[in-house]
Amino acid sequence: MTPKPKQSQAPSSPPFKSTGLWLVGSRGAISTTLAYGLAAMQKGMLQPTGIITATPAYQSIDWVEWDSWVLGGHDVCQRPIQDSARELVRANILPHEWIEALDGEAQVFDGRMRPGILDGDGAAFDGADSRSAELGALSPREQISNLQKDWDEFEAEAGLQRTVVAHVASTEAVRDVQEAWSSLTALEQALDKGTDQPASLLYAYAAISSGRAFVNFTPSVGSLPKALCELALKHSVPHCGNDGKTGETLLKTALAPMFHARAMKVLAWQGYNMLGNRDGEVLKQDAHKAAKLTNKDEALRSILEQDVSAKDRDLHSHVAIDFVPSLGDWKTAWDFVHFEGFLGTRMTLQFTWAGSDSALAAPLVLDLARLAELSVRRGESGIMAHTACFFKAPLAGGTHDFHQQYRELLDYIGRIR
Amino acid sequence: MTPKPKQSQAPSSPPFKSTGLWLVGSRGAISTTLAYGLAAMQKGMLQPTGIITATPAYQSIDWVEWDSWVLGGHDVCQRPIQDSARELVRANILPHEWIEALDGEAQVFDGRMRPGILDGDGAAFDGADSRSAELGALSPREQISNLQKDWDEFEAEAGLQRTVVAHVASTEAVRDVQEAWSSLTALEQALDKGTDQPASLLYAYAAISSGRAFVNFTPSVGSLPKALCELALKHSVPHCGNDGKTGETLLKTALAPMFHARAMKVLAWQGYNMLGNRDGEVLKQDAHKAAKLTNKDEALRSILEQDVSAKDRDLHSHVAIDFVPSLGDWKTAWDFVHFEGFLGTRMTLQFTWAGSDSALAAPLVLDLARLAELSVRRGESGIMAHTACFFKAPLAGGTHDFHQQYRELLDYIGRIR
Amino acid sequence: MTPKPKQSQAPSSPPFKSTGLWLVGSRGAISTTLAYGLAAMQKGMLQPTGIITATPAYQSIDWVEWDSWVLGGHDVCQRPIQDSARELVRANILPHEWIEALDGEAQVFDGRMRPGILDGDGAAFDGADSRSAELGALSPREQISNLQKDWDEFEAEAGLQRTVVAHVASTEAVRDVQEAWSSLTALEQALDKGTDQPASLLYAYAAISSGRAFVNFTPSVGSLPKALCELALKHSVPHCGNDGKTGETLLKTALAPMFHARAMKVLAWQGYNMLGNRDGEVLKQDAHKAAKLTNKDEALRSILEQDVSAKDRDLHSHVAIDFVPSLGDWKTAWDFVHFEGFLGTRMTLQFTWAGSDSALAAPLVLDLARLAELSVRRGESGIMAHTACFFKAPLAGGTHDFHQQYRELLDYIGRIR
Amino acid sequence: MTPKPKQSQAPSSPPFKSTGLWLVGSRGAISTTLAYGLAAMQKGMLQPTGIITATPAYQSIDWVEWDSWVLGGHDVCQRPIQDSARELVRANILPHEWIEALDGEAQVFDGRMRPGILDGDGAAFDGADSRSAELGALSPREQISNLQKDWDEFEAEAGLQRTVVAHVASTEAVRDVQEAWSSLTALEQALDKGTDQPASLLYAYAAISSGRAFVNFTPSVGSLPKALCELALKHSVPHCGNDGKTGETLLKTALAPMFHARAMKVLAWQGYNMLGNRDGEVLKQDAHKAAKLTNKDEALRSILEQDVSAKDRDLHSHVAIDFVPSLGDWKTAWDFVHFEGFLGTRMTLQFTWAGSDSALAAPLVLDLARLAELSVRRGESGIMAHTACFFKAPLAGGTHDFHQQYRELLDYIGRIR
Repeated sequence: MTPKPKQSQAPSSPPFKSTGLWLVGSRGAISTTLAYGLAAMQKGMLQPTGIITATPAYQSIDWVEWDSWVLGGHDVCQRPIQDSARELVRANILPHEWIEALDGEAQVFDGRMRPGILDGDGAAFDGADSRSAELGALSPREQISNLQKDWDEFEAEAGLQRTVVAHVASTEAVRDVQEAWSSLTALEQALDKGTDQPASLLYAYAAISSGRAFVNFTPSVGSLPKALCELALKHSVPHCGNDGKTGETLLKTALAPMFHARAMKVLAWQGYNMLGNRDGEVLKQDAHKAAKLTNKDEALRSILEQDVSAKDRDLHSHVAIDFVPSLGDWKTAWDFVHFEGFLGTRMTLQFTWAGSDSALAAPLVLDLARLAELSVRRGESGIMAHTACFFKAPLAGGTHDFHQQYRELLDYIGRIR
Repeated sequence: MTPKPKQSQAPSSPPFKSTGLWLVGSRGAISTTLAYGLAAMQKGMLQPTGIITATPAYQSIDWVEWDSWVLGGHDVCQRPIQDSARELVRANILPHEWIEALDGEAQVFDGRMRPGILDGDGAAFDGADSRSAELGALSPREQISNLQKDWDEFEAEAGLQRTVVAHVASTEAVRDVQEAWSSLTALEQALDKGTDQPASLLYAYAAISSGRAFVNFTPSVGSLPKALCELALKHSVPHCGNDGKTGETLLKTALAPMFHARAMKVLAWQGYNMLGNRDGEVLKQDAHKAAKLTNKDEALRSILEQDVSAKDRDLHSHVAIDFVPSLGDWKTAWDFVHFEGFLGTRMTLQFTWAGSDSALAAPLVLDLARLAELSVRRGESGIMAHTACFFKAPLAGGTHDFHQQYRELLDYIGRIR
Repeated sequence: MTPKPKQSQAPSSPPFKSTGLWLVGSRGAISTTLAYGLAAMQKGMLQPTGIITATPAYQSIDWVEWDSWVLGGHDVCQRPIQDSARELVRANILPHEWIEALDGEAQVFDGRMRPGILDGDGAAFDGADSRSAELGALSPREQISNLQKDWDEFEAEAGLQRTVVAHVASTEAVRDVQEAWSSLTALEQALDKGTDQPASLLYAYAAISSGRAFVNFTPSVGSLPKALCELALKHSVPHCGNDGKTGETLLKTALAPMFHARAMKVLAWQGYNMLGNRDGEVLKQDAHKAAKLTNKDEALRSILEQDVSAKDRDLHSHVAIDFVPSLGDWKTAWDFVHFEGFLGTRMTLQFTWAGSDSALAAPLVLDLARLAELSVRRGESGIMAHTACFFKAPLAGGTHDFHQQYRELLDYIGRIR
Repeated sequence: MTPKPKQSQAPSSPPFKSTGLWLVGSRGAISTTLAYGLAAMQKGMLQPTGIITATPAYQSIDWVEWDSWVLGGHDVCQRPIQDSARELVRANILPHEWIEALDGEAQVFDGRMRPGILDGDGAAFDGADSRSAELGALSPREQISNLQKDWDEFEAEAGLQRTVVAHVASTEAVRDVQEAWSSLTALEQALDKGTDQPASLLYAYAAISSGRAFVNFTPSVGSLPKALCELALKHSVPHCGNDGKTGETLLKTALAPMFHARAMKVLAWQGYNMLGNRDGEVLKQDAHKAAKLTNKDEALRSILEQDVSAKDRDLHSHVAIDFVPSLGDWKTAWDFVHFEGFLGTRMTLQFTWAGSDSALAAPLVLDLARLAELSVRRGESGIMAHTACFFKAPLAGGTHDFHQQYRELLDYIGRIR
């Protein structure tokens, strides 16, 4: 299997054949929401509320139409996607009529799923597929080539022109940074030696080295390391991540710029998150929670203390994530902001955000799939810096101010129009 | 008294003599907070938290230094400013030590106050100065020339180079729009005929026609009418307004763009405001409340329905303002946002904002005074479009998106640097 | 039709034949929730969560079992109850499977409904049944006897031993108190003369004068007037009301006693209610809203100012009810409490309550039906004082402290056990 | 020094001589608030808002008047109480004028303080008095007799009839339960052997064994062990505790009974507490936090699961306490309650409580001092079961339902009247 020279074709022509969207974590809530929502849009049963690229400001771009997307995916469990869907019906997220109305589409999607790689010791995961555990025991090089074989077969069977790989699986346990991640040469050697790697990094490596765009919607490492960024440039492949900005952090980065723009001093910003889905269950384990918390906190500091010299930085902030099983897919966050204005007067802002994790995340993944496909078609390679507004920890760095990030996306759209 | 050709001097030189800031409503909570805060900064007792023009991004501009500002003002009551200050001490806004420490400055300011014009029948106002009632009975032309005489004397006595007039009095009762407001010619005729005018319009006319910059921080009409805008161009005077964006509307216009940028459909936005100061007491009267409510609601709609055709606009929104005397100067607002995301999933955001009305407003008035003085010195005339981020209903119109408005201010600063 | 001597039977024997529950407003959300919930309990599909009389503390009483209840009802519209049910499914209150699973029961209930009396000019009501308008045009005596005829036929057809009448229709417009309401003699004369009466009073009169227990779950007048109370004693019939305490007022009367018991002075209690169902639409009209607001406010004052002499009562309170259509059956209330503790320190409590109006109300109506039936069987007559904890404005007066009221109910249960 | 036979005097006569209130933790925020508040009441400068025993329902009891109380105290630091007071002024809790107006009283109180016993290794405490460290190194028996000597001298110098000892110091680190605590005999042996004991237990032993009533307002162990309860009965001394119920737990135990009384199933109750005073700083250390969290959680479960068999108990609850320095003495708590009603409908209640820790606690300590003194005078001994409403973990156990607890207090008052 060799990387296909996708960037050689005429950049602006819309694809004649279909396009694949491969979801890593395909039996989870985000994938299920995405799959049923996409099928419903394809059948004309659903308006694209929540999908940015479907709004007027994005109309002049030749996006891949909803009808042209074909779904496939990896997962480490074998739970039928209809079961995941029924859970979302009970949580009042999926309309109950869709179970029957979209059963055909669900079956096709389910049939295109393959066992994924179980990360680490899989301790976080109860009910893993035995084949996933077997895959997890292979050498990194074998794992990578297995993934690529799955994608090649997917594309052949479905007659696809290209595939975007999107990682939407549960957060991995935090790993120590490996020295081998700091350059592609070192990473290749480590892979040759069989050094154990996080699953998300293997997915990223497999996708990018086979010329497939890679979207990392999770806080797991993915294509963050310098070695992967080099790989993407070498293969002229676009990639983006990390960690979808869907809820509390979205609000933080939409509100914090206001405090900064009004010269008010934020004394403390406390964020308490509750969630009840499988993601929440995994995050009960401290190792898995760590990555998420870091991203949430860093975004805030970078906005509020941008003018403050290092020695004067004294913002007190705290982020908690707690598992509350009865909430199911409904994330609820309470944030408390204590700030100082003129005369040193101390004031407060508090907000409660109650949203469906999956309904917030799924449309962004569709947007990112469209944007990544467009980048491939346009011959762009490396980090898709214009997607920063989608992520808690954008790969290209830059501001965390949501409004600035969003303007950068609009600027990109303006440039390519 | 003739308009002084202020714009003739070298635009970028800082003023050698002092600059006046004339506060209409000088005995109220905003003026008191501003006066004590300014005095404290002049004495090195206070950091300029909450003042935008004091932050790093604005450093390279030759602002009038705090030391150079001299305060004067009109008010329709005679309550000593020290009494207003003691009320703010009880509300935990002014530090109690300042009553004594800044008593000299307070006395000087109090000594520079003159009776103002009582608007309409003054029904909203209990305890008005008899001289204000007398002034209210004069013809508009006499009222205007009285105001200008007060300012001329203020400048002569204090040796000022120029004066900025800022209107921070309580909201006037809403008036029917006069046909005479639609052109300067018609307004001049109406003034000649002695047609009764709102006090805020008379202040605006008096300031602008005597070459003094005019800032309207209230929802009262001020310099909004076309006639006044023509007057400002005729006399080459800068002006801005209306209605300071200090609290709930600030938050609305900081948050609503996020919903729009994420393609989420806001179904309902309910805003409940409680306040307990004199402003709140005046707003108990429906005629006074009307102007404020209109501004608050309009800002929201213009952001959320910018892409929606008129016939499809169905946002349900509601703004209430209630008087809760025990809150004093502490405004508390609760907003509830009901919105729809992907799959039509309905989610909610609610926030509670608790801030001191005066501590939020006063620093913005200082910023606007500096910006207006700078505009005068730079020879700018007409509406100061770059100040939109300070107002609920910016005179120049444009977006209500706080972040865009703020960028326009930064762009202006970048241009003139 | 003459009142049946129901109280003559042995008080403690459970009924051999079935018992009727007649719902005035039978096509509304509360009735629909009650009907489907009751059917689901009868079929063993639902646990009685939210039903007080089903908890351990009430076990030793010989309640009418769920299986023995038969439903009928009056309504002024003809909308099939299945349509109401589908609306509740969309609002995520009724499980969608029940539409089909309980369709037989729904049809039977629908078949037992008769056209009700349209109150006043029916201005509040869009889509009223023409037969209801005709009934509304009859004389009060004719209306009363029509209602009783409906009930007699219901009991005969379903083979019922007795019927409890529960009023759960939308709030009527507030009426001036009639002098004739102050004694039964006067009321009888007014009815003879054909003086127009509120529909709720006619239902109460018809029920009580035919020996049927009457439960008024609404703020409409019902059996509140002295004349009706006399009627209940004359006919030895138990009755109770007014205005179900389901949400914000429940919380107020659960929390206010704590402030009183801690000697804290409540300065202000602001309550903002939002609701989106038909009840909310009717309450948009000020005349309909008035009754509700009075009840909500009175409860609070009676608790917080019980020790305060009339002249020192200075609690500032406010209750707003706003219609927010997107909320559907979901009531959301935000309350803000400003209070003073030791040293005069001012503190705040705020709460947000988000509940389904119908899911909160329906189980209480079932409890009241059981309690009323038990009272009939036990030969009790007049106001059921022990039901005060169910109502915003208990007919027998007494404390509004929810915890005291609830203890009174437990005491009653203890006494009759 | 021998225990004084205090119970021998006539029970109902008010004391002719003064009464002592000895505060353990006398330089902390609660003691400072109490001392200045008491002095202000003695001088007629303050109404007793927040003090239960000053309300009409308690009028007929011959309480020790405010004028008769004399304060003394132990503390492990030497910070002048005026410094603590100035901190409370800055936090807007003490009126600034009191620093000067009550300086004489503050000096007298400060002069009556003695070095306290430093608990454990004092790791939690930065800035401890060297004398406290020395005292900490003595044998338990020596420590006890030192405390009693301090009290004897206090009473002699101030001419007091008796003293109540109230423990209001910061929470101790949790200790393993000692076997010796299970009987007085075993404890006496352990003291003889010099086995190390928590400071709060030594204060309790010293007070009770010298006939002085003991109030434990903290979660520290105090007189909780069986050995101490035996000691109290042996010396006929009243005592009470543990852990003042001032804020979030007060609300929990006022609200949870409502859910139970309405047969609603609470699925999850999450409580997030933020505080910024020294208590908060100590609680940052997990060992100190543990005791507090246990008490907060237990109260909730005992109310909500009172009817639930052990195997079916599945309430999900969580309590967090976070240190937010900018809040100072202002505790802010956000609670989220997820509950199920009829039809299994899931609903939510959330509240935010923002109160001054010290202003909430201090009046309760005054109430408890009065109640304890009354118990001594009335010859009552052992646990003061009627004070349960003041505590998170009442020594006598019983219900945690605040309203029931409060009724028990009223019943006690009714009985002794």
